[in-house]
Amino acid sequence: MEFSSKLLEKAVNEMSQLPGIGKRTALRLVLHLLNQPEEQSIQLANALSQLRTEINFCKSCHNISDTELCEICSNPRRTAEIICVVEDVRDVMAIENTSSFKGLYHVLGGKISPMDGIGPTDLNIQSLVEKVKNGQVKELIFALGSTMEGDTTNFYIYKQIQDYGVETSTIARGISVGNELEYTDEITLGRSIVNRIPFETSLKS
Amino acid sequence: MEFSSKLLEKAVNEMSQLPGIGKRTALRLVLHLLNQPEEQSIQLANALSQLRTEINFCKSCHNISDTELCEICSNPRRTAEIICVVEDVRDVMAIENTSSFKGLYHVLGGKISPMDGIGPTDLNIQSLVEKVKNGQVKELIFALGSTMEGDTTNFYIYKQIQDYGVETSTIARGISVGNELEYTDEITLGRSIVNRIPFETSLKS
Repeated sequence: MEFSSKLLEKAVNEMSQLPGIGKRTALRLVLHLLNQPEEQSIQLANALSQLRTEINFCKSCHNISDTELCEICSNPRRTAEIICVVEDVRDVMAIENTSSFKGLYHVLGGKISPMDGIGPTDLNIQSLVEKVKNGQVKELIFALGSTMEGDTTNFYIYKQIQDYGVETSTIARGISVGNELEYTDEITLGRSIVNRIPFETSLKS
Repeated sequence: MEFSSKLLEKAVNEMSQLPGIGKRTALRLVLHLLNQPEEQSIQLANALSQLRTEINFCKSCHNISDTELCEICSNPRRTAEIICVVEDVRDVMAIENTSSFKGLYHVLGGKISPMDGIGPTDLNIQSLVEKVKNGQVKELIFALGSTMEGDTTNFYIYKQIQDYGVETSTIARGISVGNELEYTDEITLGRSIVNRIPFETSLKS
């Protein structure tokens, strides 16, 4: 692609570094910005640079936060005895949307993935183990995605904390509410039969 | 969507103003930037704000340019007698890629579209008419997209310049090179039969 302007080329090149955005889409986005009032580009630029330079992470759960301790960790109505281990802020938002969880979170910041060069020390695992060692935690809920990397990470953490007498659980895998059986993949359906729950329990949830 | 940080929320909101990018995609992009080195966000932010504040348009053809007169307009090997009328810089890039055109361009900056509130005065039409009036142009090639708005714009410009004795043409519509007839839409196929060209002419191109 040959550009008539270095400024345009630079903006397109930077934009196309984003995942899922190729050169053509980047050019479309950049030309859209050029057609909009100047404030829009400036505000986007400011928001992005501020985000990167001023962002804070909660010192307890490592979630993105504007304060030293995030809103969830500093909420006295939530119990610190149950900790839900998630990959990133999107998972926190997804679980918070359900209003089904009243404990705290621990954001790992990723999953152990040797293929991508991510080892246990790259994640917020040590601080989680410390919390468990200190004895304030009664239950850990592993809520990572059901992938090879997620399972590896769960198991790694489990090995680190198994001697401290903390309960561990993992979120249930099964067919989605409202889904037809025939469209569910075999592994999920198989697991949902093996891990069936008493009917009376299901009535309560 | 509830965010744990105002900075994050602002970045996601600004990003989701871009066409084709919803809140979820915006969040994914913003979290990707957070995982990358700080320079990447800063460079993207700088490129976007520089683009908007420092961008120039060629004073002759209105294409995006870093100089007062763009590279194409200031190239002595190109003829000013043929002007190709296009919608935006993407069309210039597309035609330049073919290396089939040695004239100059005139970038309108859009198409006449009453539905979107875009009238003739919002586009760079007057300066095109001036060029034709001055008598330096021998042929105008209309290369707008083949839509209702494109045809309207072509016709509007044609009406303005028809008394000045300039030749006008429009780029050929027909089936794509390498395309099967059966997959071509009926209107295009119909037009390509009506506007058939002598076989000997086709051998030369």
